Amino acid sequence: MAAQLSPQQLAEKHRPTLDQALDAVRTRAYWSPHPEHPKAYGESAPADGLAAFQALRGAPFALDQPGTDGWTGDEISPYGPALGIEYPHADPDVLLPAMRAGMGAWRAAGPETRALVCLETLARISARTHEFAQAVMHTSGQAFMMAFQAGGPHAQDRGLEAVAYAYQEQTRTPAAADWSKPQGKRDPLELRKTFTAAPRGIALLIGCNTFPTWNGYPGLFASLATGNPVLVKPHPRAVLPLALTVRIAREVLAETGFDPNLVALAVERPGEGIARTLAVRPEIRIIDYTGSTAFGDWLETHARQAQVYTEKAGVNTVVIDSTDDYKGMLANLAFSLSLYSGQMCTTPQNLLIPRDGIATDAGEKSYDEVVTDLAAAVTKLLGDDTRAAGLLGALVNPGVKARLDDAAALGDLALASRAVTHPDFPDAVVRTPALVKADGARKAWDTDGSAEAEAAAPEVPYLSECFGPVSFAVAVDSTEDALDLLRRTVRDKGAMTVGAYTTSPATERALEDVCLDESAQLSLNLTGGVYVNQTAAFSDFHGSGGNPAANAALCDAAFVANRFRVIEVRRQS
Amino acid sequence: MAAQLSPQQLAEKHRPTLDQALDAVRTRAYWSPHPEHPKAYGESAPADGLAAFQALRGAPFALDQPGTDGWTGDEISPYGPALGIEYPHADPDVLLPAMRAGMGAWRAAGPETRALVCLETLARISARTHEFAQAVMHTSGQAFMMAFQAGGPHAQDRGLEAVAYAYQEQTRTPAAADWSKPQGKRDPLELRKTFTAAPRGIALLIGCNTFPTWNGYPGLFASLATGNPVLVKPHPRAVLPLALTVRIAREVLAETGFDPNLVALAVERPGEGIARTLAVRPEIRIIDYTGSTAFGDWLETHARQAQVYTEKAGVNTVVIDSTDDYKGMLANLAFSLSLYSGQMCTTPQNLLIPRDGIATDAGEKSYDEVVTDLAAAVTKLLGDDTRAAGLLGALVNPGVKARLDDAAALGDLALASRAVTHPDFPDAVVRTPALVKADGARKAWDTDGSAEAEAAAPEVPYLSECFGPVSFAVAVDSTEDALDLLRRTVRDKGAMTVGAYTTSPATERALEDVCLDESAQLSLNLTGGVYVNQTAAFSDFHGSGGNPAANAALCDAAFVANRFRVIEVRRQS
Repeated sequence: MAAQLSPQQLAEKHRPTLDQALDAVRTRAYWSPHPEHPKAYGESAPADGLAAFQALRGAPFALDQPGTDGWTGDEISPYGPALGIEYPHADPDVLLPAMRAGMGAWRAAGPETRALVCLETLARISARTHEFAQAVMHTSGQAFMMAFQAGGPHAQDRGLEAVAYAYQEQTRTPAAADWSKPQGKRDPLELRKTFTAAPRGIALLIGCNTFPTWNGYPGLFASLATGNPVLVKPHPRAVLPLALTVRIAREVLAETGFDPNLVALAVERPGEGIARTLAVRPEIRIIDYTGSTAFGDWLETHARQAQVYTEKAGVNTVVIDSTDDYKGMLANLAFSLSLYSGQMCTTPQNLLIPRDGIATDAGEKSYDEVVTDLAAAVTKLLGDDTRAAGLLGALVNPGVKARLDDAAALGDLALASRAVTHPDFPDAVVRTPALVKADGARKAWDTDGSAEAEAAAPEVPYLSECFGPVSFAVAVDSTEDALDLLRRTVRDKGAMTVGAYTTSPATERALEDVCLDESAQLSLNLTGGVYVNQTAAFSDFHGSGGNPAANAALCDAAFVANRFRVIEVRRQS
Repeated sequence: MAAQLSPQQLAEKHRPTLDQALDAVRTRAYWSPHPEHPKAYGESAPADGLAAFQALRGAPFALDQPGTDGWTGDEISPYGPALGIEYPHADPDVLLPAMRAGMGAWRAAGPETRALVCLETLARISARTHEFAQAVMHTSGQAFMMAFQAGGPHAQDRGLEAVAYAYQEQTRTPAAADWSKPQGKRDPLELRKTFTAAPRGIALLIGCNTFPTWNGYPGLFASLATGNPVLVKPHPRAVLPLALTVRIAREVLAETGFDPNLVALAVERPGEGIARTLAVRPEIRIIDYTGSTAFGDWLETHARQAQVYTEKAGVNTVVIDSTDDYKGMLANLAFSLSLYSGQMCTTPQNLLIPRDGIATDAGEKSYDEVVTDLAAAVTKLLGDDTRAAGLLGALVNPGVKARLDDAAALGDLALASRAVTHPDFPDAVVRTPALVKADGARKAWDTDGSAEAEAAAPEVPYLSECFGPVSFAVAVDSTEDALDLLRRTVRDKGAMTVGAYTTSPATERALEDVCLDESAQLSLNLTGGVYVNQTAAFSDFHGSGGNPAANAALCDAAFVANRFRVIEVRRQS
């Protein structure tokens, strides 16, 4: 293939961005090349994006990839309408060998060219952010603004971050070295050595329903940038955002002179379960997965031929010990609980509040007062349906709604969920979060850890992930108990986030120790416009990779370093 | 504990060495701070080292570690005498909690202090290299010079290399960062962030019989430098070198103000199999293992709570296509086959030689001529018993001798093994290598890869690892067949090393492609004093981590990056 975009052109266009990204991951200061504001994309962009999305609906989504043996797809927007899009269904016996065909040239291109091709792909995705926003909104149920930001610039940031780490990791060893070992009076031993970053094989990206691009891009771009072909297996309810991504990646690969089959799509027929069969194919050497603990554990156990990176369920905790900004704390927590109806892997689930109350700048507040005030803050935040819908989005699937409907059975409701009418999509299932009161007395959760004690212990609802808009206001006997329950929860159940409010330096240190001991990311005293459930690429790590919620963090060197191997050739010189 | 050695003293003493190591892994040029020559350690060092070793014999090896519930040990030197040393046997229910007690302070010490403590440990080990040489010689059966070099400076180099990588990886993220995100006309969002390298938990090092220090130090020091306590479980036949290492590490930890229990020893009673029970303990979060494929696979499958790094069996190949230095090639190969009686994981097993012969600077040589000439080169190299014993060492265990005794059943012997009388140790089992002729016709090994074909195919002896002094001169129909057999062997059986001799640029490129495709480290046209079975720390990678022989390379970023997690604490500022 003749390249329409040469490496030189790519370098001129994108090398400065790559350098800035490399600098950002070193300093961890704020940086992003992807504008967050919808207006930054031009006056006609919103209408153009919507039109582009509408044009995709009710039609086959063509991809000229090998091995297509039919068409499938039945996405229904959480806002109501069926998307009516069918995607090619792939025969892996044809597609996988075709994906390997271009590996040699992709490997030979080297780390910089691969990074620049990824950056061109991300730039084209960025230019179509409004179209992606619609696709993410109508598959995940996110409200438009969140679909725009998290599905667009923030996802692109995480993709770029992965590319930067991949580039950095692959270039730590020089391409060549001369080695000369002195031998006393004899001639030195001399070797000429070359070092090449070589891919592992085909990477499988198993997408999720809630954040198809944000959770998908790190693995996709980390694998591609390290030389591996990537087979994208989207969640059947959230195909479109990743199908668009695959199409753009294939276009860029072709235009830069590489085999477009280095990136391909695998959409499953209803009930087909292709993730399970693809995951254990010998060609698949890397897997990235976001979803349930059950399937994540299955992948880790069975896909032994592959490097497996999983993000699974967890139970996120906020410890409330004391605060010097009671109103700010309540507002911040109310927003965190409401955003995307609590359907983020980072949403707090358990709020641990001392039974005897907490010290605040507004005086002592009892457990009941804190709970009541928090419920009021949520109610106030979501009082207006239009504003509420813009924050909550829609419930992503019937499972979430069923869990929410069952919340009252889990304990006394401090705040009941209410149905919100969406101004534009009357069929959307929009619900405010429920807050359940729970007993955090030590005897409820403090077993000795033995299998017998565990089996005999009563089931504690708040010690399982209750994915969706259900949180627990857990009354603990003391902050010390809260710390122990936090430790127990992170160690046994995992956590993507931990939050805490305290004015006590000693409690702060104790919280840090628990999080360092159990590998959890901690946000302290957030009372303003940063929320515990949000992380910023290039600066914050998403998850730690060190507790049961995820075996990898987004994004660090460990996330990329094992996606390739360094192959050395040494020659006598 | 009051530190006798302060961080400042450690930095003055070792920071320059750490910086040089960091520079070496970047440039991959030759470097080592550990002298290779026995005379470099002082005039009395050989006698002192021998005396120190003799003083250890026939006595209990005391370690004041918690949980000692008895004594065990029955090492017998491959050179004949029983060592008569008993080691503490540990109750893991007592020892493991005690090992965790010092983790907080070790974590808080930070990456630099941890690295410097490791360097002090390595420096003290280095000062006792002659003692270690005796310990390695009389457990592995290596000849003295090899035990000295591979068990001493080369092992210390690999340990230091791991420390350098660990330090580099932990310091890539800054300890703290200020993050300020513009908000248009509003005040920026501001956070103060701290980042801490936090260990995973206790690391288990499962040592091997042949290279207790060389194969043990990378994992031991990588884990310790990243903040993890390390429990050392030596091979029951090769306890002493690692017991000495543990004792020194504990001394240094105590003298630098840390808990000595961060490093401890677990020696098993005969038949106890403690590796299997320790490996699945929840406290064990990292495992390093060198040994059989069967147990390595078991660890990877069952020790799911841990990061598992394994080096297992493989089948190393040398492709012989052509050479412009026939004599040099024969001499180089003869040495490679003889060194430590072929008991290196890097020793070539299969020499693929075209049936129709090869082009050389000494004219065309038929398969039979190459095989005869190579056999003659080995015979000449090992003609003198004293010299032979100094190169071969002793067979490490009866299993190796049994395999060698059975070699004649595997095919025609181009070279029979002969017994060598060791000048100093008449009871040592010293044997020269055997070379077996084998048929490499494509039909012998080229199945279609299906399980049925595999099951129906006759067993091909050279396609299994035959650990010890047995190699195969495999007659292939062409160099193209050799390349295909090489690919098949690496993909299915794994390889720590690949060697090749060719004067053809096209063949060279094809060899490189196979090794890049299948993740194997390639040595080309070695005819001088560098051998395919030797790698140099800071420059060469040992294994690739990308084929079945090992899931990790020594040493790269991937070997260290997942032994710790970066924990972030962010505070509103």
